[in-house]
Amino acid sequence: MPHTQHEFANRTVNSCRGFHWIPSLQHSPCGPRTNVETHEGKYSANKASEVQKRSFGSAATQIQRNPAYSELTSDDVSYFKSILGDNGVVQDEDRIAVANVDWMGKYRGASQLLLLPKSTVEVSKILSYCNTRRLAVVPQGGNTGLVGGSVPVYDEVIVSLAGMDKIISFDNINGILTCEAGCVLENLSTFVENEGFIMPLDLGAKGSCHIGGNISTNAGGLRFIRYGSLHGNVLGLEAVLADGTILDMLTTLRKDNTGYDLKHLFIGSEGSLGVVTKIAVLTPAKLPSTNVAFLSCNDYTSCQKLLLAARRNLGEILSAFEFMDNHCIDLAMRHLEGVQNPLPASQTKFYILIETTGSDESYDKTKLEGFLLRSMEDGLVADGVIAQDISQASNFWRIREGISEASVKVGAVYKYDLSIPVEKLYDIVEEMRCRLGDNAEVLGYGHLGDGNLHLNILSSKYDDNRLAQIEPFVYEWTSAQRGSISAEHGLGLMKAEKIHYSKSPEAVQLMASIKKLLDPNSILNPYKVLPQSVL
Amino acid sequence: MPHTQHEFANRTVNSCRGFHWIPSLQHSPCGPRTNVETHEGKYSANKASEVQKRSFGSAATQIQRNPAYSELTSDDVSYFKSILGDNGVVQDEDRIAVANVDWMGKYRGASQLLLLPKSTVEVSKILSYCNTRRLAVVPQGGNTGLVGGSVPVYDEVIVSLAGMDKIISFDNINGILTCEAGCVLENLSTFVENEGFIMPLDLGAKGSCHIGGNISTNAGGLRFIRYGSLHGNVLGLEAVLADGTILDMLTTLRKDNTGYDLKHLFIGSEGSLGVVTKIAVLTPAKLPSTNVAFLSCNDYTSCQKLLLAARRNLGEILSAFEFMDNHCIDLAMRHLEGVQNPLPASQTKFYILIETTGSDESYDKTKLEGFLLRSMEDGLVADGVIAQDISQASNFWRIREGISEASVKVGAVYKYDLSIPVEKLYDIVEEMRCRLGDNAEVLGYGHLGDGNLHLNILSSKYDDNRLAQIEPFVYEWTSAQRGSISAEHGLGLMKAEKIHYSKSPEAVQLMASIKKLLDPNSILNPYKVLPQSVL
Repeated sequence: MPHTQHEFANRTVNSCRGFHWIPSLQHSPCGPRTNVETHEGKYSANKASEVQKRSFGSAATQIQRNPAYSELTSDDVSYFKSILGDNGVVQDEDRIAVANVDWMGKYRGASQLLLLPKSTVEVSKILSYCNTRRLAVVPQGGNTGLVGGSVPVYDEVIVSLAGMDKIISFDNINGILTCEAGCVLENLSTFVENEGFIMPLDLGAKGSCHIGGNISTNAGGLRFIRYGSLHGNVLGLEAVLADGTILDMLTTLRKDNTGYDLKHLFIGSEGSLGVVTKIAVLTPAKLPSTNVAFLSCNDYTSCQKLLLAARRNLGEILSAFEFMDNHCIDLAMRHLEGVQNPLPASQTKFYILIETTGSDESYDKTKLEGFLLRSMEDGLVADGVIAQDISQASNFWRIREGISEASVKVGAVYKYDLSIPVEKLYDIVEEMRCRLGDNAEVLGYGHLGDGNLHLNILSSKYDDNRLAQIEPFVYEWTSAQRGSISAEHGLGLMKAEKIHYSKSPEAVQLMASIKKLLDPNSILNPYKVLPQSVL
Repeated sequence: MPHTQHEFANRTVNSCRGFHWIPSLQHSPCGPRTNVETHEGKYSANKASEVQKRSFGSAATQIQRNPAYSELTSDDVSYFKSILGDNGVVQDEDRIAVANVDWMGKYRGASQLLLLPKSTVEVSKILSYCNTRRLAVVPQGGNTGLVGGSVPVYDEVIVSLAGMDKIISFDNINGILTCEAGCVLENLSTFVENEGFIMPLDLGAKGSCHIGGNISTNAGGLRFIRYGSLHGNVLGLEAVLADGTILDMLTTLRKDNTGYDLKHLFIGSEGSLGVVTKIAVLTPAKLPSTNVAFLSCNDYTSCQKLLLAARRNLGEILSAFEFMDNHCIDLAMRHLEGVQNPLPASQTKFYILIETTGSDESYDKTKLEGFLLRSMEDGLVADGVIAQDISQASNFWRIREGISEASVKVGAVYKYDLSIPVEKLYDIVEEMRCRLGDNAEVLGYGHLGDGNLHLNILSSKYDDNRLAQIEPFVYEWTSAQRGSISAEHGLGLMKAEKIHYSKSPEAVQLMASIKKLLDPNSILNPYKVLPQSVL
């Protein structure tokens, strides 16, 4: 039985205590914060000539190895040792095996060489050599991507940025951080928080992902609704082009209108136009007050209205508006250890997590409480609770962040990351349920404030017939709404051939022209991002 | 004699009343909101072969007309009439004269033809034809630019977007506006404000400037500190390439990671890569409470510390932090009608305008007052006042926005728009004063929160010797700080040859390669943005 308004009011108003929320470190909104090292030892690298094997349908696009690429020789290895030293050139099978596979175990390459440059000049020498020799390269950061963008497809040389993990400078008046690309996001967060600032992005994989990878995939994540896109927050970049040219765009200025703003080409191009080596990013001031509420709504229309009301009434303190359907909550309760449903008696279909961040604890709390009471009076919210301490807040976030982790425990999961106009965002979930019937469980959740739906379809095993029921329908449906088939995950290998669902032929053609201009031998991250037909 | 702290406290606390500030419509932070029509009739178009004449030194770079461009024929005019009708093809000398000159009267071209397309398809037909015929083109919006980017240099065909001024749609849940490029910024502001939103940018020229021009110059302006760059706020664009290809990138999604984000190439490329025809932009919710304070500080170090304190303590409600030295105030008092100094007895060297915008009038006011009292106790603020009504707030803004207008009344003004790390931002003003002695008045003001200095040097007349004292020194100094020689105005004709002060040779070379890729015949806005030597 749902709680009454009075119960809700009592619970929130009486139990509410201000707190500074520190994000949970253990979990990922995009799946478990798995360290790639957990895969170690399970796999030995294939030979270069062997066709890759992958574990299920949608990734198993048949692409042939491009014969224009050379195969690695011992002379190549000797050259790399001459510039990187023995420690920078990894041929150990077990270590390479880890770098050959993504964290989901879904995409697996057959590289025989992992390089670990320590400087931009070393990256430049590697690429210059590979370009001359026509050796294909896959740049790799924390290898936490979800679309097969960060692992080799065949025998590409893996260039890991893990050895370039220095913080170069921090301007603590303007909050401008300059660092190398291999810095782990969480380390940067800790560093800038000690200086009184926060990173403008946060995501579950932050314990492993690199800032260079975040930029190369234009990562979105949990702070997007408040601080916006990396295109707005990245002030400068240094990148190395395919021919080894070092492109210094590493300004730390908030404004610079001198010529074309080239850095944007490298934000979100998934390592296919150049290797990002250094970054200057604007970090917002850390605000002392955070509150988290967990709410339920009876229907999707109420969720939309609540979003609009939150934008109006919480205004400048709104920092997250996350959405889950009841299938997500049921799944999280079944599969996540130590997680409790904050609204145990609720039978409602939809759940919302709202976070506020501001500079005044008592004011922010009062404002959120007032907003929630009004929303309840207006019938938008069925039930809800405000976290009274950091442990409750972590529990609320754990539910939201743990959905992806829980979903992979069922067996097989088909994951889609869609941008759809908010008013139609849930329609695809319901259509998919009708389409699949009782054979699969369909979950809808995501960043409602950004119009970003994560559509997960759970099944006991991967099955080509099931996949044929889902694709291309999901892409066609999204395309018909002028949505995006990849809101924040990128295209990688998984969706390179599907770009036309979201981009016009003219745009794809221009992308291909730019790729050819910057990487005429196509050595950088081949088979990914763009369809083979246009390259 | 400066006011005491007590006086300040009384004045602010007692006189403060909440209000909703509506920006003044008459004035420009970049000069008077002059409509180009005021120039009408003063000028007759030169012949195409005549060398341009400009009114003072720094613009008078000697560039020869590129003989690769064709000259206009009557057949060309007939063709344009066949696609645009008679009304879309302007040959009237007086009307063309207006479009040939910028609002400052500083840059003057010799075009003989002004085209007024009404649709993207018409723009496409024009460019396709011009590309085939090798007719150079200058795209023109509101013609309010400051670097000679929006007027012809020789006989380029002027393609005005003024006829494409329709609002296409507004999503009032997500605040997403889609419109044509020729919409005047102020009209868009009025429209979205009626829907409960605001445009993410605001600038003095908004009564004349077009949103397409704002995007093509990556306009900064007064809301930058709060809402950031257009690279973060523009969601989608439609642009026409030099060969007439229509590039549909007009998504209205907050997130879309499908391939390279091409729209960023057109934001800030000053019409040299394509003509922006449609725009989708994210508009923030309009917040009901605005407060404005006008403060004085004894030294520049206090200004910097005040900025840091404002970021920390005003946090999410800070919406402007503008800076002026006492020379600016003196000038404004001498030359702006009806403007009063809010701090008449003050002898301090620096002035700060702080604006807050939030969702709670009484809370915001209390917060600002508390912050100012603490800042005074800490010795950062010498004196100050909070506007008690909209008229006072407008007066405060009028001083800041009127500086540029006042400066042109002196005679000659050399204007520089620099991005410099905040801690060094005022050094160039003082160095310039030492350098020029009593022969010129040097003003420093700008968007301190964004590290953006407007350096204006006033003199009775333009003089090559004076210019030689200023340039290249100002560019060399800025370059040595890794600053930008154009924070928000762009390069246009004025600074195309100066790009190397802020960009590396490799970056400039890549820009040139992209220009050649997108516009191989270089018909779009020639002689501008990039140095002739790399094209």
